[in-house]
Amino acid sequence: MIQLTALYGHPQDPAAFDRYYQEVHGPLGLKLPGLKGWTVNKPMAINPQEQSPYYLIATLYWENMQAFQEAFQSPEGQATAADVQNFATGGFTLLIGEVQVYDPVSLS
Amino acid sequence: MIQLTALYGHPQDPAAFDRYYQEVHGPLGLKLPGLKGWTVNKPMAINPQEQSPYYLIATLYWENMQAFQEAFQSPEGQATAADVQNFATGGFTLLIGEVQVYDPVSLS
Repeated sequence: MIQLTALYGHPQDPAAFDRYYQEVHGPLGLKLPGLKGWTVNKPMAINPQEQSPYYLIATLYWENMQAFQEAFQSPEGQATAADVQNFATGGFTLLIGEVQVYDPVSLS
Repeated sequence: MIQLTALYGHPQDPAAFDRYYQEVHGPLGLKLPGLKGWTVNKPMAINPQEQSPYYLIATLYWENMQAFQEAFQSPEGQATAADVQNFATGGFTLLIGEVQVYDPVSLS
C-alpha cells in the first residue's frame, strides 16, 4: 500500500479554500485512477499552546507504487496536480511513501 | 472518526530511531485504548528536487474525540506520549482532527 500525504499550509482565505476544495479539487481527486481510499481532516495541534502548521491534511492510498505512478501520470493526475496551484495559497507539501505498518481490519 | 497525524523530523541516528520505533514505541502505541487503525510510512517528497521535511509519518484513528481523549489520558496514552522524547531526536508534531472525508470501503 502506498500513502500520499498532502499537507496544506494555512490559506489566505480559508472560506475560499474550503469552497474550492469541496467543489473542485475533491471531485477532481476522486477521479484518480486506482485510488483505494482517502481521508481529509483539518487538524489542530495536540499541544494547546501551538498552532497546527497545516490547515488541512489529506491522505490517499494506492495498491502499490506502480499504481500511484500511473495515477500521477494520467490526465486526471496531471489535472489534479495542476489544480493545487488554484487554491493552495498557504503552500503545500506532497509526500509519498510505502505503508510499512497498516491495520486495515480495524479501520473498517 | 478522529485522525492523529504524527510527523517526525529526520532523526540524528535513523537506524537507532527505526530500532526504537519498532521495538518500543510501536508496541506501546498498539496498547492505546480504542485504537481503530493505524499506518506508518517513511515518505519522500513527490518533487525529486525536494527532501521530505519528515522522516516518518504515522496516522492513528479513533471512533470519536471522546475515545481519543480517553486514550490520550489513559496510563497507556501517557506512557506513549512520554516515550516520544526517548527517540524523536529530529523533533515531532502531533496533530489531531476530525476526519471529514473518509472512504473506509475502498481502504479494505
